[in-house]
Parts: sequence; C-alpha cells; structure tokens
Amino acid sequence: MIYRFASRMEKTPRSFIREILKVTEDPKIISFAGGLPNPALFPVKKLNEAARAVLTDDGISALQYSTTEGYQPLREFIAQRYLKRSGLAISPENILITNGSQQCLDLIGKLFINRNDPVAIERPGYLGAIQAFSLYEPFFKDVPLLEDGPDTEVLRQVLDTHSPKLFYGVPNFQNPSGLSYSGKKREEVAALLSESGIPFIEDDAYGELRFRGNDLPLVSSYLPDLGIITGSFSKIIAPGMRMGWIAAPPGVFEQVVTAKQASDLHSNYLAQRIISKFLADNDIDSHILHIREVYRYQRDIMVKIIEETFPPEVTFTRPDGGMFLWVTLPPGFSTMDLFNIAIKENVAFVPGDPFYTDGSGSNTMRLNYSNSDEERIVEGITRLSKAIHSILK
Amino acid sequence: MIYRFASRMEKTPRSFIREILKVTEDPKIISFAGGLPNPALFPVKKLNEAARAVLTDDGISALQYSTTEGYQPLREFIAQRYLKRSGLAISPENILITNGSQQCLDLIGKLFINRNDPVAIERPGYLGAIQAFSLYEPFFKDVPLLEDGPDTEVLRQVLDTHSPKLFYGVPNFQNPSGLSYSGKKREEVAALLSESGIPFIEDDAYGELRFRGNDLPLVSSYLPDLGIITGSFSKIIAPGMRMGWIAAPPGVFEQVVTAKQASDLHSNYLAQRIISKFLADNDIDSHILHIREVYRYQRDIMVKIIEETFPPEVTFTRPDGGMFLWVTLPPGFSTMDLFNIAIKENVAFVPGDPFYTDGSGSNTMRLNYSNSDEERIVEGITRLSKAIHSILK
Repeated sequence: MIYRFASRMEKTPRSFIREILKVTEDPKIISFAGGLPNPALFPVKKLNEAARAVLTDDGISALQYSTTEGYQPLREFIAQRYLKRSGLAISPENILITNGSQQCLDLIGKLFINRNDPVAIERPGYLGAIQAFSLYEPFFKDVPLLEDGPDTEVLRQVLDTHSPKLFYGVPNFQNPSGLSYSGKKREEVAALLSESGIPFIEDDAYGELRFRGNDLPLVSSYLPDLGIITGSFSKIIAPGMRMGWIAAPPGVFEQVVTAKQASDLHSNYLAQRIISKFLADNDIDSHILHIREVYRYQRDIMVKIIEETFPPEVTFTRPDGGMFLWVTLPPGFSTMDLFNIAIKENVAFVPGDPFYTDGSGSNTMRLNYSNSDEERIVEGITRLSKAIHSILK
Repeated sequence: MIYRFASRMEKTPRSFIREILKVTEDPKIISFAGGLPNPALFPVKKLNEAARAVLTDDGISALQYSTTEGYQPLREFIAQRYLKRSGLAISPENILITNGSQQCLDLIGKLFINRNDPVAIERPGYLGAIQAFSLYEPFFKDVPLLEDGPDTEVLRQVLDTHSPKLFYGVPNFQNPSGLSYSGKKREEVAALLSESGIPFIEDDAYGELRFRGNDLPLVSSYLPDLGIITGSFSKIIAPGMRMGWIAAPPGVFEQVVTAKQASDLHSNYLAQRIISKFLADNDIDSHILHIREVYRYQRDIMVKIIEETFPPEVTFTRPDGGMFLWVTLPPGFSTMDLFNIAIKENVAFVPGDPFYTDGSGSNTMRLNYSNSDEERIVEGITRLSKAIHSILK
C-alpha cells in the first residue's frame, strides 16, 4: 500500500534518543543516554496524598472537560514563582498549561513557521526542538553556542541576513551541552532580538536546577513583547504527568490558545489539579533544593572520574546546573563508533550528531548524570574511558 | 507589536463552542450547548481507588517518562475490546495512546495534509476536526450527510474529481447531527474508498453509547489498509483525563509514532496507568450500560418535549445513541438570532454555522442532552420553543 503522506513527514526524523532508550531498558546497561530525572526523588507519597484529596473532595469537577488555558490556581502559582524567583511579572492570564514543555515547541511551530521559513537555533541545539519544528518545514540557521552563550556576531548576521521567524535557545544548563548564557550575553542577545523584532523562544526546562552560582535573569525579562518562555514540572516534580506551560505576551497568547484548542482542547485536568494541590500543600523550595544537592553530587562524581580517566585531548563542559554534560573528542573521532563499542560493555550515551542540523558534531556526545547513582557513574565512566582509549590508541 | 504568524493561524478559528461554554458557565443557564458527558456518571470513587493503587504499588514507575506508543496493557485492552465488540482484529502494536481523541485529528493533519490539499468531510461536520485540520491549511470538499450516511454519489464525485488525501467521518451518532451510517452505507463508503485508495478517518468517539438497535460494523473493518480509527475514554470514563487512542495500519502507524513523539513525547503516563487499573478492576460493560440507559432516558425526554412544543415546520433527528440531536428550522431562519433571544431566557445551544465549511447551515442547531437532567430538559426546551415561536410568528 502506498500512502500519500504530507511532505513534512519526510523531514521529521524519529528521535534517536528515544530509539536508544529502548536498547537501554535492559537493567544491565549503565545508561547516560536518557534525559531522565532521578526517580528516587519523585514525591510519590505526597502526590498520592494530593491525588486522593482532589478525587475525594472535588472528583466530579476534576474529571470533567475544562478550559483550554488551564487550571487557574496552577497558572497563578507559576506566575507567582516567576515573581518570587526573578522579580519577573507575568500575568497568570498569559500562561497556558501544556502537555509537557515539548508541546510548547509544537505550538510554537504552529504559530510561527510556514514551510521554508528561516528559524534560528543554537548549535548544538535541543533535539526535541529540532524535531518539533521540523514538522513545520523550516530551514534552520545555526548559531554556535560558546562557553558563555550564543556567538552574538553570528546571531547578528543571521538576524540581519535571514530575518528568522524566531530564535530558539536554552539559556540555563542547555540540553545537550550543559552550558548557560552569562549575564552579559543575556542582555546582548535580548538587545539584538529587540532591534530586529524577532521573538525569543526561551526554553527554561532546567532553570530551577541550578546547583552552583546565582540565578541570572531570564532573557525574556528584557523582552516584554518578544520573550516566550516554556517551562516544565517534569524536572522538579515528575515527567510522567506531562505537565508544562508556556508564557507569552498578550498578542501571541491569543494564538497559543487557538493552536492548543485545535491540538487537543486542553491538558489533562486531573493531573493539573493534582499538581496544584501538591504545590499548595508542600514546600516545593525544599524539594527542589534536595534535587539540586543530589544532582550536584552526581555531577561532581562524573566530572571527577572523567578528569581522572579520559585522555587529555578530550574536553568537556562543567555545568552549574541541569542534567547533562557535553564531551568533545578530537576531530575525526566518531562517537557513533564509540557507541557501538561502549554498548558491548553495557554503557550507553547519546552521540552528538542528532543535536546538529548541519550534519556535523560527529565527535561529540551527551552524558546524563541525573539518572545514575555514584556506583554506576564510577563504573560506567570508567568503562567508557577504556572504550575511548581503545579507539584513540 | 506586529507578529509574523504562520499563514495557518489566519485559517484556524477559535472554537465557537468553547467560547459559548464560557458564557454558559453561569449555573442559571440551562445549557444544551456543550458536548459534556453527564458528570454524575463519572466513576469517581473507583478512579480514586485505581489512582491510589497505582501510586502506592508502582508510583515511581508511573511518574517517570514512558514510551511514545503508550502503556502496553492499555493498548491490549483496547485491542481486546474491538475484538469482543465487533470481531475486529487490531494488533495492540498498531494502537497509540493520545491526549484525548482531539489529538488524533492533529496527528492526522500532520501525517497527511499539505497546504492546499483536498480533504473530504461530512456536511455538517465535526467542528473539532474542521478546526484541527485547518491548521494544516487544506481545502475542504463536503459530502452531505443524509439520514443513512454520506451521499455516496457526491462522495464518488469528490473522490474522482479531487482525489482528497482522506475522508473524515463519524459513522456512529455523529457530532453534531446524531445521525449514523446504515449497514449498507458502511459497505458502500468502504468500497468507494477502497477503489480510490483513500484513507478513511473513522472517528468513533461515541460508538460505545448506542442505546437503540444493534452495533454495526466499523467502516474500517472493510478497510484493512485504509481504515484509521480514533477512540476515546472521555465518553465512557471521564473527559478530564484527556485519554484517547488511534488505531492505524502498520504503514501509517510508524508515522503516527513519529508525529506523536515530535508533538509531546507521550501521553500522561500516570493517567494511562490509572485508567488501565480502573479497567482491570471494574466491570466496564455494566458501567457503559448504565451510561446508555441514562442517555436514552434523557434523549427520550428531549425528543418528547420537542415533539410537543416545537412548530411543525421544524425537523430534527432522533439519534440511536450518542449525546446530540440536530434541529433544522425553515430556510432563512437564523439560529444565531435565536441564540441571542434564548440566552436572555437563560437557555443555550450551538448554532449550526460552525459545523459547515461552506458558510451554510445558519438555520440549524445542535442540542446536547447528555449533560442535563429531566427537569432542566423540560424547562429548557420549553423556553427554547417559546423563543422559536416568537421568531416564526
């Protein structure tokens, strides 16, 4: 049978990471591949209590259809938290609850991208965004991500030459690189976008996970009309509930509502109610503090073992938060070859290729430290190091 | 601020129904407007038990990221139910869990519709599908829905002349009309689509809600390679959990997985686990039987009061299941004018216009009977009748 699919389907690859995850389900494998939070930190008991309270006290309402925008107290909590964390005033009326923050990217694609529109993105860039946007058939203009944020010279050139529909970035503890924009870069990026009138899609899925240094302002705080922020409860509560949000200026927000309505009416209302109840009854700050401490510890172990065992010509990032670090091997090295050797030793990671839209990056890889305990990090990195040495020898 | 939105956003109207729902939240208003199930029938206590069991026994796993396709036992339940209800063999491997069945329509749009592609749809057609597909900028070719199903002469002509990418229909208790395809029409529609090699998107959200007559085969049962079925737990368990599914032939299914992955990774996993546990521990057949009895009763009351009070020149459908009936007033009558009069009498319904892609249907309206009890149906229809008489006089 020959099916006449839309042209976008040819341009949208399956996520290599999710394909890898299937391989790494085997518990024998030490996996640094996924982007999974540490499940030992899920507040299972408290979510259980919250679920029981919602279903016991207001079950009928929590199970009925609801508004497209989302549960009002949850929108208010999110707005309050921006105010508290960074003094950023966002009205709850400009926040919509999504099916995880991945759905925000699909909504952004719907809102802005016509076929063959230019879209600016970091290099390396978040695979999920490349995938989500690809459904709307843009062409990507990459902006190299340096240690302190995007290369602003290239960004300026891309904005001037191509006038992209948007610039997508992850200023805090980027997936995949673990890098963050410096305070200065945030202002510079905002100034460039403001001059050109081009929206910034600020993916802040990891912003709450800073374990070193002080919080920096969101780029969107300098861009009242152009900053669109996406957030997620996946990393601070639990990803299985698929609960995220998008905050957008009023002129954009209306269109977000239309796109969300057409896409799936509204997000799971029971889950919104459970999360809202959980947040009302518990101290989320101390919960997040605990996550940060655990991730810092795991990150420090991984950095230490890499420093001790990897060959000196291998470089890597030392993130101040989030869940990933990024390894660059010498030019010509293939992390895909490394993957095939490592998997035989029961260690997995994500080769860097899929984070590049230009076919480069084959000597890079992403390592996740949030989902492995000390013992597995030590053992897994040691095995990975041996595999690297065996190739470089 | 001028934003450069994608062209699709101009073509996608906000749902008029959801706008109406905001007006009708006032409990003084007797609303036949929404498509809400009767919340008194939600199995709140049993879902509460299921939630507690899942979170107590396997909370950590239920809160982690999961597979794009969905929870395997839930996929198996759905496959088993097709087999049991209608002898239709669908592999669980060809079923994907979605964020309500509305998301199926978004995925179908992604898979098949390029800008300016022809898409065939019933007239009147389901508003949610018109809205979801509109994001992908097709042009609609309407096929009139007669008492026994689509006008097959027109369907043949549309298929021959335009070779649409798909034909979308609701063979059981259609939203908005309440009409169903006869057994003969199902075979005829299948034969026409089979000849032309054009997929049928069979929206079966209401199939379980038959309260008169016998189940008829799904059109897809005659279309092994071309039938794509969408289903929902919204009408038989609870809509707030946003849980639906899509069943597609293998060659299509792969692309469904890619589109779902890019759209939101996977559906709420905790909700999948809760629904699966609820289904394992309870007799869903007796629960559905109860819903059917209640809806039949409510439908019968509404039909009776309409027969007694509406002017004789008004015609309406007498559905064998589902949640809606469809009223046609004399040519030239405006149900939008009627709406404005009725709302002052605290009665609401949905004017027919938005169910037409060609601007016609302004003398039609949709009435929902599932979400009003006997007293409100009697009182509401009586008031509505007075408003109609006041215009027709």
